[in-house]
Amino acid sequence: MSRLGYVRHRAPRGAPARRTTGGVAVVICDHLHRLFSDPYYARFLSAAGEVLAEHGVPLMVTTVPPAGPGAMPALAGAADGVLLIGARERHPLAITLSTSGIAVRGIGRPPDDVKLPYADVDNHDGARQAAEHLLLGGRRAVAMIAGPPPLPAAQDRLEGFVHMLRRAGIGDVPVAYGDFSMPSGTHAMQWLLRRAPALDAVFAASDLMAAGAIHALRRAGRRVPDDVAVIGFDDAPVARRTVPALTTVRQPVEELAALATRLLLAGTSSVNPVLPAELIVRESA
Amino acid sequence: MSRLGYVRHRAPRGAPARRTTGGVAVVICDHLHRLFSDPYYARFLSAAGEVLAEHGVPLMVTTVPPAGPGAMPALAGAADGVLLIGARERHPLAITLSTSGIAVRGIGRPPDDVKLPYADVDNHDGARQAAEHLLLGGRRAVAMIAGPPPLPAAQDRLEGFVHMLRRAGIGDVPVAYGDFSMPSGTHAMQWLLRRAPALDAVFAASDLMAAGAIHALRRAGRRVPDDVAVIGFDDAPVARRTVPALTTVRQPVEELAALATRLLLAGTSSVNPVLPAELIVRESA
Repeated sequence: MSRLGYVRHRAPRGAPARRTTGGVAVVICDHLHRLFSDPYYARFLSAAGEVLAEHGVPLMVTTVPPAGPGAMPALAGAADGVLLIGARERHPLAITLSTSGIAVRGIGRPPDDVKLPYADVDNHDGARQAAEHLLLGGRRAVAMIAGPPPLPAAQDRLEGFVHMLRRAGIGDVPVAYGDFSMPSGTHAMQWLLRRAPALDAVFAASDLMAAGAIHALRRAGRRVPDDVAVIGFDDAPVARRTVPALTTVRQPVEELAALATRLLLAGTSSVNPVLPAELIVRESA
Repeated sequence: MSRLGYVRHRAPRGAPARRTTGGVAVVICDHLHRLFSDPYYARFLSAAGEVLAEHGVPLMVTTVPPAGPGAMPALAGAADGVLLIGARERHPLAITLSTSGIAVRGIGRPPDDVKLPYADVDNHDGARQAAEHLLLGGRRAVAMIAGPPPLPAAQDRLEGFVHMLRRAGIGDVPVAYGDFSMPSGTHAMQWLLRRAPALDAVFAASDLMAAGAIHALRRAGRRVPDDVAVIGFDDAPVARRTVPALTTVRQPVEELAALATRLLLAGTSSVNPVLPAELIVRESA
């Protein structure tokens, strides 16, 4: 911050503006460009913004590197409350916020090493529904494109999927990891096709990765769903634009955002609601 | 903010976190949903974010109602510097910021009633180039879809366009106003077709409004560019997707964002650079 030191000189700490507070900060542990490339954030922020507008509360948004360090001073100086999206294990900002005394609610279950009230979607059950749908469709050579390992939501989707397959006697599930983006889904699918050329189904932890996987499968000459069934996660707009249309697990992002925002405004930290996820069957599986 | 009063209790004004500062706040005088529906903001924020990342400075984003009031406390409490986008005449936040002592740089010329250093694109000359291109193409029944009247950038595009036409002896230029969005361009074009059914060209102050205008012209049975030439402003991604491809005035959003951010970080308030706009001729005019 040394480049900005002169500002502190021009606006001393005692200045009235600095002492006042206002607004809710949505802190996104992700890269800035993903704020615009992953529709999850637009869906979440629009819904949270509507609730805040009802209360005349300003919304602020900032991104911090997924691996930290986080911009704690900027946030703490500004926000009366924080919605923290996508905190990963050992994220310094998550740990600092959880002990800051500032009202914070995690969006998605926080890592085990962080204690925060949160609101989440039932990622584990959503992934279980995806596995069940593939099993009922007769698929047995099933692979998964998972999200970043340090992210609780990614862990829950992986565990829910693999756990259901194990119960069906399928112990070996090839897993490739992506960052939820479309290109990472393409690369992960290419890796899986080399690792398990006989696979007949793949579950991707995001719709963008599923769209990327469909792209890779087409280039590899595999028909979807005839040769390989594909299921995504999110029910993002892209799920209706893929060819074939994407079967996916819908997570109620708008409802999650509205509920988490209302709980933050109400000062309620005792409840951690988990909203149901729902399998939406289209054409790809 | 009364709903958040309990937070102030839990994190008193004297708390260390509140006194520290950090980061640059990009304050957008627009509706939250436009942050995602108008690609200008993604282009600007991505470029500004890259420069800030080079300096390890966090980026924060907030929107305030175009008509104000602005969330001055939240910003002042958080930011070491502010980039203010889209400030309109008599916007209370713009006026407050300009006298706050916080480092601020306007993106786009500030209203005449606000004194701020700024970085801008030559909207007046860009609009002049659009008018010149239409005149050289033999168009004489020319209309314009302008942006919000209180916005300096909208005023400059309107004045630059109308001024050039007057110099060519065209004094009557029907003008409809939109909010830069695609639907507003469609509605404005429909109004212009009723107001001036013989028009043979239209200049829209944004590519999204131009795309909306092309939509309205097609539904009215007018061929573009044969019957009506259309020119937009921005050179946004949509300019390549319209049918026909959009002739538009390119504004160097990324360069503007990077330059303004570097000037803010350097603490330079004495220069107000204005970047050139450039007519990009495609198929629509």
